[in-house]
Amino acid sequence: MVMQLNLRAFFERVEAYFPEKEIVSRQADGTLFRYRYADYCRRVRQLADALRRLGIGPGDKVATLGWNTYRHMELYFAVPCLGAVLHTVNIRLSDDHIAYILNHAEDVALFVDPDLVPTLERIAPQLRTVRHFIVLDDGAGAAALPEVRAYEDFLAQGDAAFAYPVLDENMPCGMCFTSATTGDPKGVSYTQRGLYLHTLALCMADSLAVSEHDTLLPVVPMFHVNSWGLPYAAVATGAKVVLPGPQPTAADILDLIESERVTFCAAAVTVGVQMYAQQRERRRDLGSLRGLMLGGSATPRALMRRYLEDYGVHIYTAWGATEAAPLATITHVRQALLSAGPEAEIEVRARQGIPLPGIELKVLDAQGQPVPRDDEHAGEVYVRGPWVATEYYRDARSRDGFVDGWWKSGDIATVGPDGSIRLVDRAKDLIKSGGEWISSVDLENELMAHPAVAEAAVVAMPDARWQERPIAFIVTAPGAQPPSEEDLRQWLARRFVKWWLPDRFVVTDALPKTGVGKLDKRRLRERAAELAVAGPA
Amino acid sequence: MVMQLNLRAFFERVEAYFPEKEIVSRQADGTLFRYRYADYCRRVRQLADALRRLGIGPGDKVATLGWNTYRHMELYFAVPCLGAVLHTVNIRLSDDHIAYILNHAEDVALFVDPDLVPTLERIAPQLRTVRHFIVLDDGAGAAALPEVRAYEDFLAQGDAAFAYPVLDENMPCGMCFTSATTGDPKGVSYTQRGLYLHTLALCMADSLAVSEHDTLLPVVPMFHVNSWGLPYAAVATGAKVVLPGPQPTAADILDLIESERVTFCAAAVTVGVQMYAQQRERRRDLGSLRGLMLGGSATPRALMRRYLEDYGVHIYTAWGATEAAPLATITHVRQALLSAGPEAEIEVRARQGIPLPGIELKVLDAQGQPVPRDDEHAGEVYVRGPWVATEYYRDARSRDGFVDGWWKSGDIATVGPDGSIRLVDRAKDLIKSGGEWISSVDLENELMAHPAVAEAAVVAMPDARWQERPIAFIVTAPGAQPPSEEDLRQWLARRFVKWWLPDRFVVTDALPKTGVGKLDKRRLRERAAELAVAGPA
Repeated sequence: MVMQLNLRAFFERVEAYFPEKEIVSRQADGTLFRYRYADYCRRVRQLADALRRLGIGPGDKVATLGWNTYRHMELYFAVPCLGAVLHTVNIRLSDDHIAYILNHAEDVALFVDPDLVPTLERIAPQLRTVRHFIVLDDGAGAAALPEVRAYEDFLAQGDAAFAYPVLDENMPCGMCFTSATTGDPKGVSYTQRGLYLHTLALCMADSLAVSEHDTLLPVVPMFHVNSWGLPYAAVATGAKVVLPGPQPTAADILDLIESERVTFCAAAVTVGVQMYAQQRERRRDLGSLRGLMLGGSATPRALMRRYLEDYGVHIYTAWGATEAAPLATITHVRQALLSAGPEAEIEVRARQGIPLPGIELKVLDAQGQPVPRDDEHAGEVYVRGPWVATEYYRDARSRDGFVDGWWKSGDIATVGPDGSIRLVDRAKDLIKSGGEWISSVDLENELMAHPAVAEAAVVAMPDARWQERPIAFIVTAPGAQPPSEEDLRQWLARRFVKWWLPDRFVVTDALPKTGVGKLDKRRLRERAAELAVAGPA
Repeated sequence: MVMQLNLRAFFERVEAYFPEKEIVSRQADGTLFRYRYADYCRRVRQLADALRRLGIGPGDKVATLGWNTYRHMELYFAVPCLGAVLHTVNIRLSDDHIAYILNHAEDVALFVDPDLVPTLERIAPQLRTVRHFIVLDDGAGAAALPEVRAYEDFLAQGDAAFAYPVLDENMPCGMCFTSATTGDPKGVSYTQRGLYLHTLALCMADSLAVSEHDTLLPVVPMFHVNSWGLPYAAVATGAKVVLPGPQPTAADILDLIESERVTFCAAAVTVGVQMYAQQRERRRDLGSLRGLMLGGSATPRALMRRYLEDYGVHIYTAWGATEAAPLATITHVRQALLSAGPEAEIEVRARQGIPLPGIELKVLDAQGQPVPRDDEHAGEVYVRGPWVATEYYRDARSRDGFVDGWWKSGDIATVGPDGSIRLVDRAKDLIKSGGEWISSVDLENELMAHPAVAEAAVVAMPDARWQERPIAFIVTAPGAQPPSEEDLRQWLARRFVKWWLPDRFVVTDALPKTGVGKLDKRRLRERAAELAVAGPA
């Protein structure tokens, strides 16, 4: 008999050994809900049993449309411990994409936060498989949904003495869809074994070192790749958790860090930027915070430096994706660099790091050969490992995304002498000029370091002679004069060879964003094409 | 395709990302051998290939009789990465037991340290399956062995470009025999998956937190349950390793800690006691040492306090056994106790702690019911988990040692309100007096805290009325007057109820030890029985 690796083991450990530890959850009205793992575990067992009574069992898909709340975290364990699949749906997608996702996954039940009910009411007629709607509150005001229940009433039907079934570790237990820039989103399925091992990896001393001593604040949404795994790591260790609730502002997050003595926070880079600005307006005590993990895009070095110098907060960088549950690499400051000072640390933490134990990684050039460790030659990053997907869920596009068990990430990186990777671009965002590659990310980072620049985006502009040439879009920093083209050109020339410099610099009021808040480079490329057609400014 | 969990993943990670980190190995002449993981990995691949050329393949057993050296550590990965089974043999066992073990395991090759060749020469005629003998040096002076080779010559035959085979994670890769106090030793087999997961557990922040920043000094022998897993954890993280070599003294160990800036050391409690005494004679700088893990028997609180107060060294306590690869529980100082001061920490660290993630544990009374969490009622500890054995290797005694997939440890413990266990005795060492249990360990600990007592052992003496009564054997501390019976009785009466106090106290020159240096309670029980027959002193 081989003991199976599954999330239930973490649940039963916290239930047995850390019942007194707290979960704190910010509510819609700004007040804090607070209970202990003892209560949490009792309610999770009730919830699992209530789902079972509804006819939901192993393999069934249960969707959520929700914020980071204690109820969502209850679903994070009740659904997998029952053997069902927790399908967290990105609330920021378009109605059509949400409907597509719910239908494609064949979800049978859906839990929804009250403020997201209107979304659901609009798409309800399109849904083909969802039979049960549970509102994560009292269910009032969801009259347009069929079979609607209030969460608390629903949970109360379950038995807190419910014993979980024994599960095979290779069963699916989670699901998340990537927000493809074109076409329908692609689904990724996670196994019990995969999430179990991902969780252990996060708790290792050289990754995030999640500990019972921590107070974790996952700002990264629970609908976004398992909130980077923090809810699972919290339960695995007995760490206190602080959940920021619906629509948290930078001020809300900082207030929570101060009042709950948060030790580790994870958020999108854009949130990290807002937090820094807000903290400058009103200074909170961030002394408890050992780490702030930022992701979703490259963290500007300047921001890392400011957090470290002003508040002693270390920025954690990792790399991953929906396909990797999500973490595949992590930055690690080596023993040899511990005494090298803050700038050396920032140089390391600005990179995406080395694979977590269990993950295999390779960076291949256009000929399929590993790139040298010179930090100059770039290639595409491939990964595989116990928690990395090997296909998209019932999707013909799996053929393009996976090769011989490796996930082909579409991210372009260099490899340093220490083996750590440095992302330079998305494959599709690279600029191919005269047969050579130019990294839009490197140019953007340098432009954003300019004092008069708030935001910058660089994309390819069609060019008759060179095939593509870079063009930069610039948003002026608040209170600054728009920088001149000559000024920006000189700024970049300090660090880049001449043929890397953008042919044009366009100052604009705002950069277009996608539904999930990422820079919309597709629309910028369309504008660049129009400008190319229109000729020189 | 499910990615398999095996030790090769750790090997290839250190090879790719930490080639510059060091392994230091103390040699027989006291000098230090020093090389890097790059050299280590090259030689491990060569060694694996040399084994393959010898005809050794997946499933074959390769035995070692060796000290903690870099060559032994090469075998720790070469053998498992080839798919073969590394069988580390306890050099302190009797000739007959060593011969039994080698035959029972059906080992085909044996690696032996030069100073252990005489042992092997004595038993060679009894060996039925070992075809190849490799001396971990130059092979000179092993003329009496058949098919003898020198390690370096043997290794040189292998190809450093050897690619390891793909292995199923449930294949055996390690083997160790327990030193049973009666009968033949019992064999335990470890799988790739089991040792992989055990290694991750050691690296978690709340267990040993093994990190690339560490310099590990495993004093616990590599022939003793995988050196508690430290060689595997070192390779998994890229930690520097310092190996103490043949016959290390307490002075050797302290010198290594000081000169190599060791951060974490693991050793038997008896070694920890000798180290403390030696350190008092000549004070080394122990400032680098974040932890000293002691095991094999209970660590006296007084020793923990002295290490902490005098040198700032935290003592780590865990619990496990050969059957658990070896670690099943670990002490963890909870967040709530971090500011409670050193005495609170010592109270926690004197206990055996809570299960590592993945391990399930229960403590059952004589009726098979879980004992309450009152730290008073004692029961037998049962564990199961991904790296816990479910049988003895080809041994009918498996029937007694395992129940429904649980290993029945034979250790008696109480459970505290926080769920942590406190070992009170071995099942066979408990004293059953008038239907109640008396813990020999508790009495021994208190006796050893007496200033005039160096060592103490308490066993059961047959008693007509109460069935059994405790009797204490005492070794006087150096320079002290032998304590009187009345003195000892009063000393114990401060902490124990009257019926727990031993009926007799016998001052003796030395306590009998087994071949592996453990207290031989069987011989003490024989003496107690003789004394009972002889009547009152």
